[in-house]
Amino acid sequence: MTSKVQGCVLCEGPGGRLVFEGAKLRVIHAEEAGFPAFYRVVWREHAPEFSDLDAADRALCMEAVTVVEQCLREHLKPAKINLAALGNMVAHLHWHVIARFPNDSHFPGSVWAPVQRERDAALEADIAAHLPAVEAAMIERLGNRSF
Amino acid sequence: MTSKVQGCVLCEGPGGRLVFEGAKLRVIHAEEAGFPAFYRVVWREHAPEFSDLDAADRALCMEAVTVVEQCLREHLKPAKINLAALGNMVAHLHWHVIARFPNDSHFPGSVWAPVQRERDAALEADIAAHLPAVEAAMIERLGNRSF
Repeated sequence: MTSKVQGCVLCEGPGGRLVFEGAKLRVIHAEEAGFPAFYRVVWREHAPEFSDLDAADRALCMEAVTVVEQCLREHLKPAKINLAALGNMVAHLHWHVIARFPNDSHFPGSVWAPVQRERDAALEADIAAHLPAVEAAMIERLGNRSF
Repeated sequence: MTSKVQGCVLCEGPGGRLVFEGAKLRVIHAEEAGFPAFYRVVWREHAPEFSDLDAADRALCMEAVTVVEQCLREHLKPAKINLAALGNMVAHLHWHVIARFPNDSHFPGSVWAPVQRERDAALEADIAAHLPAVEAAMIERLGNRSF
């Protein structure tokens, strides 16, 4: 788990708009239509599975996920946070951290499930307006520790 | 986070076939059509979000998830493990831990995504035949620590 894997998009690029970069992991904002508050915690080294990390790194990784979750909760008051590490398509450890709302296009289904209703432009604009504050909080809290 | 919430299916029942029960969490086998190796780590107390747990409990919870993942990997050699804590429908912390295979009905999509192909009865039977050994390993390893 030390070198880049050729052809892995998360080894070769950030994978989205970079919000925070630490020695072991980074946080990116994902561009996923209908879900403006969709972030990913990406482990820097190429590790396909969570259990490929040792216990200290697993704890560190989940503490970063927790910071992202807390910032989303505090600033956006979502109905639910969704966390997932799937990696079926990109087998490089990354945690999806997604703020969900009752009137988003897929709620209460997962973001990967069939659409439930039309997108709500006003909801999405309201969330987007809060993202600078969300991300300032992430950067401050993540920067206070060694991630 | 101390008492049961009336109407919460994970406060009022195990939520599936019980594999392991500890003081803080339990592991159940889920009955999800097409995915015989689908387990859940369910936090005992009613906590909607992962960040409702304190740091020690978060680490403990993820170590249980890791044990379940490791047992699935070692016995089933899946293409990928999928981890998720969504809770949009049942907002009581539970982690899905799912072994995925290239010829399962939804791969490489998530289990919540549209179906990709017909179910493979031979694959499912082969996985099911290994579950007693998978679960014996889970019980042994989870029982060696205080979960």
